[in-house]
Amino acid sequence: MQKLNVAMIGGGFMGKAHAMAYAAMPMFFWPAPAIPVRKVVVDINQQMAETARDRFGFEEASIDWRAVIARPDIDIIDICTPNNSHAEIAIAAANAGKHVICEKPLARTGAESKTMLDAAQAAGTIHMVAFNYRRTPAVALAKKLIEEGRIGDILNFRGTYLQDWSADPDSPLSWRFQKSVAGSGTVGDIGTHAVDFARYLVGEIASVNALVKTHIPTRPKQSGGVDKLGVGGGDNNAERGAVDVDDEMLTMVKFANGAIGSIEATRNAYGRNNFLTFEIHGTKGSLAFNYERRDELQVMFADDVADARGFRTVYTGPAHPYGGGLWPIPALGIGYGETKIVECYDLCTAIVTGKQPSPNFEDGYRIALIADAILASGETGQWVDVQ
Amino acid sequence: MQKLNVAMIGGGFMGKAHAMAYAAMPMFFWPAPAIPVRKVVVDINQQMAETARDRFGFEEASIDWRAVIARPDIDIIDICTPNNSHAEIAIAAANAGKHVICEKPLARTGAESKTMLDAAQAAGTIHMVAFNYRRTPAVALAKKLIEEGRIGDILNFRGTYLQDWSADPDSPLSWRFQKSVAGSGTVGDIGTHAVDFARYLVGEIASVNALVKTHIPTRPKQSGGVDKLGVGGGDNNAERGAVDVDDEMLTMVKFANGAIGSIEATRNAYGRNNFLTFEIHGTKGSLAFNYERRDELQVMFADDVADARGFRTVYTGPAHPYGGGLWPIPALGIGYGETKIVECYDLCTAIVTGKQPSPNFEDGYRIALIADAILASGETGQWVDVQ
Amino acid sequence: MQKLNVAMIGGGFMGKAHAMAYAAMPMFFWPAPAIPVRKVVVDINQQMAETARDRFGFEEASIDWRAVIARPDIDIIDICTPNNSHAEIAIAAANAGKHVICEKPLARTGAESKTMLDAAQAAGTIHMVAFNYRRTPAVALAKKLIEEGRIGDILNFRGTYLQDWSADPDSPLSWRFQKSVAGSGTVGDIGTHAVDFARYLVGEIASVNALVKTHIPTRPKQSGGVDKLGVGGGDNNAERGAVDVDDEMLTMVKFANGAIGSIEATRNAYGRNNFLTFEIHGTKGSLAFNYERRDELQVMFADDVADARGFRTVYTGPAHPYGGGLWPIPALGIGYGETKIVECYDLCTAIVTGKQPSPNFEDGYRIALIADAILASGETGQWVDVQ
Amino acid sequence: MQKLNVAMIGGGFMGKAHAMAYAAMPMFFWPAPAIPVRKVVVDINQQMAETARDRFGFEEASIDWRAVIARPDIDIIDICTPNNSHAEIAIAAANAGKHVICEKPLARTGAESKTMLDAAQAAGTIHMVAFNYRRTPAVALAKKLIEEGRIGDILNFRGTYLQDWSADPDSPLSWRFQKSVAGSGTVGDIGTHAVDFARYLVGEIASVNALVKTHIPTRPKQSGGVDKLGVGGGDNNAERGAVDVDDEMLTMVKFANGAIGSIEATRNAYGRNNFLTFEIHGTKGSLAFNYERRDELQVMFADDVADARGFRTVYTGPAHPYGGGLWPIPALGIGYGETKIVECYDLCTAIVTGKQPSPNFEDGYRIALIADAILASGETGQWVDVQ
Repeated sequence: MQKLNVAMIGGGFMGKAHAMAYAAMPMFFWPAPAIPVRKVVVDINQQMAETARDRFGFEEASIDWRAVIARPDIDIIDICTPNNSHAEIAIAAANAGKHVICEKPLARTGAESKTMLDAAQAAGTIHMVAFNYRRTPAVALAKKLIEEGRIGDILNFRGTYLQDWSADPDSPLSWRFQKSVAGSGTVGDIGTHAVDFARYLVGEIASVNALVKTHIPTRPKQSGGVDKLGVGGGDNNAERGAVDVDDEMLTMVKFANGAIGSIEATRNAYGRNNFLTFEIHGTKGSLAFNYERRDELQVMFADDVADARGFRTVYTGPAHPYGGGLWPIPALGIGYGETKIVECYDLCTAIVTGKQPSPNFEDGYRIALIADAILASGETGQWVDVQ
Repeated sequence: MQKLNVAMIGGGFMGKAHAMAYAAMPMFFWPAPAIPVRKVVVDINQQMAETARDRFGFEEASIDWRAVIARPDIDIIDICTPNNSHAEIAIAAANAGKHVICEKPLARTGAESKTMLDAAQAAGTIHMVAFNYRRTPAVALAKKLIEEGRIGDILNFRGTYLQDWSADPDSPLSWRFQKSVAGSGTVGDIGTHAVDFARYLVGEIASVNALVKTHIPTRPKQSGGVDKLGVGGGDNNAERGAVDVDDEMLTMVKFANGAIGSIEATRNAYGRNNFLTFEIHGTKGSLAFNYERRDELQVMFADDVADARGFRTVYTGPAHPYGGGLWPIPALGIGYGETKIVECYDLCTAIVTGKQPSPNFEDGYRIALIADAILASGETGQWVDVQ
Repeated sequence: MQKLNVAMIGGGFMGKAHAMAYAAMPMFFWPAPAIPVRKVVVDINQQMAETARDRFGFEEASIDWRAVIARPDIDIIDICTPNNSHAEIAIAAANAGKHVICEKPLARTGAESKTMLDAAQAAGTIHMVAFNYRRTPAVALAKKLIEEGRIGDILNFRGTYLQDWSADPDSPLSWRFQKSVAGSGTVGDIGTHAVDFARYLVGEIASVNALVKTHIPTRPKQSGGVDKLGVGGGDNNAERGAVDVDDEMLTMVKFANGAIGSIEATRNAYGRNNFLTFEIHGTKGSLAFNYERRDELQVMFADDVADARGFRTVYTGPAHPYGGGLWPIPALGIGYGETKIVECYDLCTAIVTGKQPSPNFEDGYRIALIADAILASGETGQWVDVQ
Repeated sequence: MQKLNVAMIGGGFMGKAHAMAYAAMPMFFWPAPAIPVRKVVVDINQQMAETARDRFGFEEASIDWRAVIARPDIDIIDICTPNNSHAEIAIAAANAGKHVICEKPLARTGAESKTMLDAAQAAGTIHMVAFNYRRTPAVALAKKLIEEGRIGDILNFRGTYLQDWSADPDSPLSWRFQKSVAGSGTVGDIGTHAVDFARYLVGEIASVNALVKTHIPTRPKQSGGVDKLGVGGGDNNAERGAVDVDDEMLTMVKFANGAIGSIEATRNAYGRNNFLTFEIHGTKGSLAFNYERRDELQVMFADDVADARGFRTVYTGPAHPYGGGLWPIPALGIGYGETKIVECYDLCTAIVTGKQPSPNFEDGYRIALIADAILASGETGQWVDVQ
């Protein structure tokens, strides 16, 4: 069985999730398309790199991502760093002939994303962007039902991604609140996941019309070197710095195929934790999903018998997408880890088959263009065509 | 105890709900503000009027609403007719010095609504528009919590009203699909309920930006004289007539107080029956409601203890608005009838105290202006200021 | 259309519900089987009786139920008094040739219930016991699906009735906590509703094995004459009296047809308000119901397509039992009132057709025997055959 | 950091879950108490063992568990085999001075379990039984709230474990339907998880009174060597063999501390997948949990403000047990894997601290005694004291 040597750049929360996936993927999907080998992990200083190595089970630690990319034994570059470094690393990796998986959003803007796509296409290597939530089996089931025509033609799509980890005005000024690093706020950080659902399930978005707002203009600066995800509140005696990204966005969308819809994202929704939802109405039925209850897809068929018609609560399991590899009984439980394991499976499959996975940099680029359009519309109040 | 003689114009589904409320209100709210007397019911022919009289427990039947309005013994004119007759009847009633309750939407347009408001104000009588859903105790509880500042300043409002009774292309061409009668489609019929929630709970809407769409352009004409509500499908061999109103609307809204939000309404959402919802995020907490589970309000307080923080499922009962008059234990069950009983209680209270109830024609007029703005924005794709 | 003159004995909470049903039933079910006339209401003193007359819309007030029963113009005696008076009134009514509807439980014991059944059968009049929850359309739908064999043979039944209105040790010593008046505690008061579901949906119960417990041995005595339902806590400075009934019961059951099950009832379940539920597993599917969300029945068919199999959330409406008479769109909302309106419809239908309704005194008697068996098993810890 | 060499006996579904936990635990809990090393995996033939080795990332494969136990370099024996081999392996492991984790139920009977406990105690090594569901953070949160007295004294416990994977009469005759291998059916397989919840959260069970039933007396024999978990139906042309274990059990329980309760388990509940639930009522509040929505604990405090009182839907995250090691935002998602990762963390912590984990063989033994009592009571219909 082929082995694929992985170099992971960045050893934070996302590094944890990816490392788990590399270790566990063959346990779930067997025979595995390939065996990922956790070869080297890169972090910003020697101590952090060595800790990441020991913690995440890599063979080596490094603080020089360029040197790692130059190594001939590395097959996959896995980018788990803040958004502003995605392009530089990914382009270097592609230029070195590596396969690349990059955390989302692909980059800070559409233009920056395009440079990554161009490099990857020029290199001819496999490229993937880590919109992992579409790997949830219930979401993949929605895709399957739509493709099979079982809810008919799609009339509309409603997506939300609501969180509350930054609702506290004293939660710290993470890089996620700084435009130079993150590119945008809620739009890029979580809104793009909902946009990914929209494109994956319904089709290309033609134009948008958006409201974009910053609720909390300043936040306490972080003292330590490690970025905090706002959990547990910040140091409200700390000096405050400016937030120059959006806290909330709301957009109407027109799809190329005629469907319409709305997408809303906010990190200021008290009580919502990871409330990533969609609801889709078709001419023959409807679908609804809430990631907070991710083992379930709500499925409604209009032609069901009149006295027993209603949304079915379908728990995903062996009868559903990826079911052969996951757990043998529905509701044993899909967690965040499983979405990453499936992602890793699709990445490795792509590499061994030579067929680009989905979502790849092309998808990441198109999503970035939509994010650009949302931000532009938020400025002008006009409908903006997606480039 | 004062008696109030009621003349009800229209003996259909809404007549049933109103008649029940007149009979039951004093049973629930005692001592009652007044005793409504079901004096006379008016319908479009003698047989229907007499049936309505017998069925709904009125003393008399009539087919001449003008004559009924002229009667000095009538205190309240209750308008349960299609939208295109609201203005004529209400104005005549006001001119005759009657108190008026009118089914929603107040009229087909803002301009038409204004004539009703003007007449009512000139008459100095009590006027009310029947946006009954805000009488649901859980919605009134939301209002109370907001007014007491318990979720802080409101950041946003998301409202939906999703139904599926007209999703079938062969459901009959009710008057609700004809602009000359209904004024608009989903916007006026159900969207206005969501708009009423928005104004009631958050405040005045300053501007809107909307998508409005007709999914099903023709429907089978109805054969009989009685309007059908689309239930059970139409006669698909019947000649088809044009639908000239909207099936779905989606709007972004800006409130005068700075909050933002979205409202969506459709009657083509398979699997949604009476899915009238809102979610409100504030600086200190959140609220969520779904009329399909109307006994419950979801309430979240940000300052709850960290290890037991989350939406509370509050079942309304004696400790909540209108609780003294309704059932003695939460979840004995609020139905559609109870919302109308509360509405009747508020109407009678207004009449005996001489203080206008809420929502009154002023509210109905403002909601109509918002509906106008939504339709206009749907045409132009621009933000439209509410007049 | 036939008129039926009603004399209602007892003008409390139940009186309100019944009065509303008499007024509203023909509005919902038209042509009505008969028109109930609220003729006379009886209460324990003149003032209360007259208040009940005015509030509930009766023509006359009385404090002498015997005299009322003797009146030849009365067709129906409606018993809404505490349990210890049911037998005396019902027997007198039957002896006077009246139709009788009696609030549940039928009486304090099986033996007492038997005297009522005997009298009613001897009289040949219509008799009914007011287990209204089975009139919820979703429960009637469950019955229909079972009878049509759509979930196959029933394997088991799990029923609960959980409330919390007496969980507070200082909630007042209502008559519901006194054996001499109530007969039993939770067993009779709410457990019998769950037993009614079991018999209605599955069949006769052959034997039981129960745990019965009193959690709170004393409660503050009530000062006023009007019984309080424990809402809002009692006067904790008041003298305390002994509770001699059960607070909680839990029983296993064996049905005559081989199915097994469990029933639990408690009034000490903090957070549960009117949590009357069942879950039924059959050889071809399952059903689940929760009265707190009473518009819905959960329906699962084992032969559904493998990738879209799961409980369907069915909202009851026109396509379901009693749907022609209730509201025209599902989820407009079934409340407590509607269950009583349907009950009234079934009572009047029984009277005009001469066919006993269900549940009648025979059912009430059998349920009382089951309650006796539960209490007996709670004493002995042994399986007890239902007489 | 200490390394702990693991030998895993059995490479099926449970092997997958355990292997993932060994790989991932240090990624989540860092600094880890120890680093588990996947040293050797044992299966029933060479091919299966080597496949398990490659798939689950072990260094070596073996078909001789006795030889493996004899190896001095092995620290932990992990038993993932069918129930009938647990005792023999565990005792040998203990005698060899190994730490042991054994899948549940500990053994087929209390007596058999006792031999394991005795051996482990004699050896003085660490022993653990894999009732992993109590490791769900929401369940651990329930434990914490109870221990802190936040719902007061516990009145009752209701537990269920409902599945449907064997509801089809043609699902294959897995070893789980054979008493000689499994010991019992639903009682041991899934009922013990609910019993573990009961003991963990409420306390020791003193006596039980149970109904135990086999719904499907024969099933098609399995053709291949690999045991099937009934998924997808069996070969209904295959010869059928006898089922000699229970399909469903229902028991009342009395706790030593005076609380009462019920536990039900069945694998014939169509529509329930992994419906492992509890509901607990205390004198100051209530808790409810459903593993199918395992990120959530329902928490109700009686002393909440009257107008906003109700069950709180608490999503577990960093503020809750094990939160520091798991995901940084609630509802990112707990899956089956995370329960096993936490279990592995507790096992390794126990080994390095020398303090027995919970649940250990003592717990497994007591649970087996309760299972024995349930089965005995199912035979006699009498209350049976737990030994």
